[in-house]
Amino acid sequence: MSVIHYKTIGIIHTPFTSADATPIQPTGAAGVKGTIHIKQEYQDGLQDLDGFGKIIVLYHLHHVQQEHLVVTPFLDSRSHGVFATRAPTRPNPIGLSILTLNRVEQNILHVENVDMLNESPVIDIKPYIPSVDSFADEHIGWLAKAHEQFKHAQSDNRFSKNR
Amino acid sequence: MSVIHYKTIGIIHTPFTSADATPIQPTGAAGVKGTIHIKQEYQDGLQDLDGFGKIIVLYHLHHVQQEHLVVTPFLDSRSHGVFATRAPTRPNPIGLSILTLNRVEQNILHVENVDMLNESPVIDIKPYIPSVDSFADEHIGWLAKAHEQFKHAQSDNRFSKNR
Repeated sequence: MSVIHYKTIGIIHTPFTSADATPIQPTGAAGVKGTIHIKQEYQDGLQDLDGFGKIIVLYHLHHVQQEHLVVTPFLDSRSHGVFATRAPTRPNPIGLSILTLNRVEQNILHVENVDMLNESPVIDIKPYIPSVDSFADEHIGWLAKAHEQFKHAQSDNRFSKNR
Repeated sequence: MSVIHYKTIGIIHTPFTSADATPIQPTGAAGVKGTIHIKQEYQDGLQDLDGFGKIIVLYHLHHVQQEHLVVTPFLDSRSHGVFATRAPTRPNPIGLSILTLNRVEQNILHVENVDMLNESPVIDIKPYIPSVDSFADEHIGWLAKAHEQFKHAQSDNRFSKNR
């Protein structure tokens, strides 16, 4: 199976219309609100999602049109393999953000801590389950020195299509 | 953008060749070892990954050929929207597992706690970063009663193509 086809299940709306000045992780977008509009044909899949405090959102990084296997990420001046970073220029430009779910109104999810570009196509939503998804005190390699900057760092246009 | 194309970047090898008796989450596969063979053309992207203790693996659930928006998951006798579960019959059958990374040898990742079917196509690997990805004490909806069972529950063939 060399090519895999996925479909857009919804669109996320955020205040960020340009890669310039978009937070690079949800921890840098604390309190920033957005909405995910799930296509009506998938609305039945949202049943009982409102009981969860956080959701994992997978989305297509639709502005990325380059692929770089070695990147200099926003948080470092040295280069690293793209799979050792969360940089967007991956072979498959899939974004993963863990968002706070405030409420569900029919096919619209009201979310918080959005760090994605406006109109990013959503491809999956999963409930965040701490007993499965939460691990503390893991080794974090090159990020050990830099990861506190996630709270403040913003992206620039180094990975966007206009460069 | 209605159809999104991704490519297989590697294949994961696990002891599980049938949906019957495959653990349903990495917490149920503690200590089970596997390997991810990244295609050589993507090997440069692995640089510095070995510093991370855990990785997020996104993979294609290649045995799933059904789509059900409302499912009765392995851990409950009641039905829920598929986006409120980790069941595989999603509109886009993408699996997400957080694995322990033991070591990297060239293009081969030696991993632990594998809960996926053998030969699942891998589409992305990201470093697990606790300050970004770890949240405790969130509301977990319908799972509040059931989630301890992740450690013991195994799948059956209810979602596989042979049923």
